Amino acid sequence: MSSKALDYENLNENIKKCQYAVRGELYLRASELQKEGKKIIFTNVGNPHALGQKPLTFPRQVIALCQAPFLLDDPNVGLIFPADAIARAKQFLGMTSGGLGAYSDSRGIPGVRKEVAEFIERRDGYPSDPELIFLTDGASKGVMQILNSIIRGPSDGILVPVPQYPLYSASIQLLGGSLVPYYLEETANWGLDINDLRQSVAKARYKGITVRAMVIINPGNPTGQCLSVANLKQIIQFCHQENLVLLGDEVYQQNIYQDERPFISARKVLLDMGLPLSKEVQLVSFHTVSKGYWGECGQRGGYFEMTNIPPKAVEEIYKVASISLSPNVPGQIFMGLMVNPPKPGDISYDQYVRESKGILESLRRRAHMMTDGFNSCRNVVCNFTEGKSPVSFLFSAMYSFPQIRLPPRAIETANKLGKAADVFYCLRLLEATGISTVPGSGFGQKEGVFHLRTTILPAEEDMPAIMESFKKFNDEFMEKYEDHKGYSRM
Amino acid sequence: MSSKALDYENLNENIKKCQYAVRGELYLRASELQKEGKKIIFTNVGNPHALGQKPLTFPRQVIALCQAPFLLDDPNVGLIFPADAIARAKQFLGMTSGGLGAYSDSRGIPGVRKEVAEFIERRDGYPSDPELIFLTDGASKGVMQILNSIIRGPSDGILVPVPQYPLYSASIQLLGGSLVPYYLEETANWGLDINDLRQSVAKARYKGITVRAMVIINPGNPTGQCLSVANLKQIIQFCHQENLVLLGDEVYQQNIYQDERPFISARKVLLDMGLPLSKEVQLVSFHTVSKGYWGECGQRGGYFEMTNIPPKAVEEIYKVASISLSPNVPGQIFMGLMVNPPKPGDISYDQYVRESKGILESLRRRAHMMTDGFNSCRNVVCNFTEGKSPVSFLFSAMYSFPQIRLPPRAIETANKLGKAADVFYCLRLLEATGISTVPGSGFGQKEGVFHLRTTILPAEEDMPAIMESFKKFNDEFMEKYEDHKGYSRM
Repeated sequence: MSSKALDYENLNENIKKCQYAVRGELYLRASELQKEGKKIIFTNVGNPHALGQKPLTFPRQVIALCQAPFLLDDPNVGLIFPADAIARAKQFLGMTSGGLGAYSDSRGIPGVRKEVAEFIERRDGYPSDPELIFLTDGASKGVMQILNSIIRGPSDGILVPVPQYPLYSASIQLLGGSLVPYYLEETANWGLDINDLRQSVAKARYKGITVRAMVIINPGNPTGQCLSVANLKQIIQFCHQENLVLLGDEVYQQNIYQDERPFISARKVLLDMGLPLSKEVQLVSFHTVSKGYWGECGQRGGYFEMTNIPPKAVEEIYKVASISLSPNVPGQIFMGLMVNPPKPGDISYDQYVRESKGILESLRRRAHMMTDGFNSCRNVVCNFTEGKSPVSFLFSAMYSFPQIRLPPRAIETANKLGKAADVFYCLRLLEATGISTVPGSGFGQKEGVFHLRTTILPAEEDMPAIMESFKKFNDEFMEKYEDHKGYSRM
Repeated sequence: MSSKALDYENLNENIKKCQYAVRGELYLRASELQKEGKKIIFTNVGNPHALGQKPLTFPRQVIALCQAPFLLDDPNVGLIFPADAIARAKQFLGMTSGGLGAYSDSRGIPGVRKEVAEFIERRDGYPSDPELIFLTDGASKGVMQILNSIIRGPSDGILVPVPQYPLYSASIQLLGGSLVPYYLEETANWGLDINDLRQSVAKARYKGITVRAMVIINPGNPTGQCLSVANLKQIIQFCHQENLVLLGDEVYQQNIYQDERPFISARKVLLDMGLPLSKEVQLVSFHTVSKGYWGECGQRGGYFEMTNIPPKAVEEIYKVASISLSPNVPGQIFMGLMVNPPKPGDISYDQYVRESKGILESLRRRAHMMTDGFNSCRNVVCNFTEGKSPVSFLFSAMYSFPQIRLPPRAIETANKLGKAADVFYCLRLLEATGISTVPGSGFGQKEGVFHLRTTILPAEEDMPAIMESFKKFNDEFMEKYEDHKGYSRM
């Protein structure tokens, strides 16, 4: 029997090379343990509903009515649906020809793209053009499509923050490009240093790589920081000088749990900077219904907005979107609802605000519980100020990314087992407690520095027990692998 | 201002090269005309709901309840939802953790994959393994994922039927592989000749291309034929000899409007053939909720099933699926409902059968009306028997693909305008009647032979007027471009 195209050894090498840690070794082991009957706390993926977050009522009412438009003619519909949900469903159905069962335009329903443009204008203070907004099946699909337009081969480089969300490393590998890392500085609230950026580009160039785009994740995943305006300005200036497309992954823009540093979009900062930059720097910004307090991951709704991309390139991106016909239409409706939720005076307004606030405030409390919990553990440090004393308020997104200071003997033991030290630690944590995290090496980290990423999503009432179980494991682990004289905590 | 990564001239060449006729020049012109106020009949895409087909009630009830699970606690729910829809919604919600708002496993919800496996077993008479079934956002996404696994570079060839659905040509171009055409024989009910296949492979090899996979579209798009068991056996034998992965696009398996030749899956024929082939030929089969009598295009639900693909390769395909986290969950539920619809005795059974039959019978009548209509037009011939007299009963899928015998003067005029002759004809048709079709050249056709593709989906009551308007246009067109002595109809 000779070997075939779908035998492992014959697969596209880019597929074999690419790695995706969020659902990698740890996740697979967790799934195995679950099958064997162990209770697993899946904190590896930002998947709020899977951990018990309830969906917001209003959008679900609207989408239910859009899915079952015959209910709109049912005399009893008013008994179980509020009038504003009914009105909104009719409005969405009026935007489509054929409802949720018909392919939309490949860029998404024009009426929803208009709602997105209005949202962006309210947020940034500058008008946005619906023709430059494409709806997508979640933000990931949009990111992959734009990277596919940019990457032509291994000498095309994309600047990606380290630590980074592995969507970027995986997609760049899959598309056969080169990832050019730049490091976020843990001791400076995970900000970035423009001089480091310059060095990264120079190093890449030396290897024959042309850097063509730069990814920022703001608020950061897994690092949870909000970039400052000053930092964003430097980045934009840098992209202008180096002729880079800026890719702004802004999917956590709703997830801000501190007031000191609000989210500001890359687009607002760019347009505030005025000419020539505001007309010259190419920017693509991404958003989603999966994160925020909506957490509607399973619906796969997202969009990207293009700034300063010439019409002929937009047309090509449209053409490629056409090949898979259209993003899923229910996900598009969710996006329309997210950017244009109930307004004061609407019947559902109070409930919508109460539910949204409830989720966001609980996330904020959980963020604090988790950060404080980690900071109380031996050799675990979560977030720094410049003075290096741990603080918990600089926190956005939906993750905690504590540094784990592994004793040399733990690192040696891991090496002997052929595992990265953080993978070894996270596997032990999983086996001991059922907590399924992602080792920091999946996101990239500096040599000799170890982290883990966990979501802050377990139910609030479960959080104390989870943190206690973590602490017990960690302190035993440290006890076991530390030298007798002890391993000093910085 | 120097040129940037997202300027047209710098885009990935594979993106610029790829063409997608279904939403190409004709579609764009139709959209323009629509904006100008002209009434357009969009028959370019198989998008039944957009042309007025009503969704089936039962699946929409179930999905509405899954989207709004709080309704299940509402004492009034029984007033507007039948008990079996309520039970089914509860069953689906029980299969997920977190309902429709949570990412599922990247392969899809295990419970739904099990329902798909049971459907396949009932259909083919052989058990199917849910672990080898991946749910996808429509069939197109699955096709692209599998092609991406196979194609490593320009010397990897994929055998694709001509005429073909342009998803294949576009995806192969996008992925940088080589399309190797094989011709379907119009005078033999669009069947394929194994000797032609051999020649295609030999020609490709001569050019340095290794053919690695073969696509069949069964029932055919745009050609509407069902492959015979004998033909399928030859194809499988051929794939075995040539070591090709067989990709079976079977998305129209529900759309059979004749009894003479039922749909038979490639998998059934393969397993019927026994050892060694049944264990050696690699097969991936695709299905969708977009076609059939469901026509739920906007929901983007699909699956692929792998036969004889080794576990290590399946793992790699799983890994790549993980990067975009999960297919949309509502689309997965639709797939579960399609493969496991109401059963005799269920409250909704009669309505479900009545609605399904109604759609399918109307599609059958429309197929006949359209084929007969085309066959009554000057120089238009739709489907042949071996004796070359037009017949209308060999008809599946949701398209009509008449041959248009263009007079030499029409071809010359088109050439002068720099257009393919069929594009010229279809543009004239669009401007004159508002009927938006796809020129045959978008699917590939033999040199000097011209077709157009139209769906059979316009509402039944509109069909006579549409065909009349087509006939009027066509006959005037032919009158204008034919020589005085007349252009003889074959």
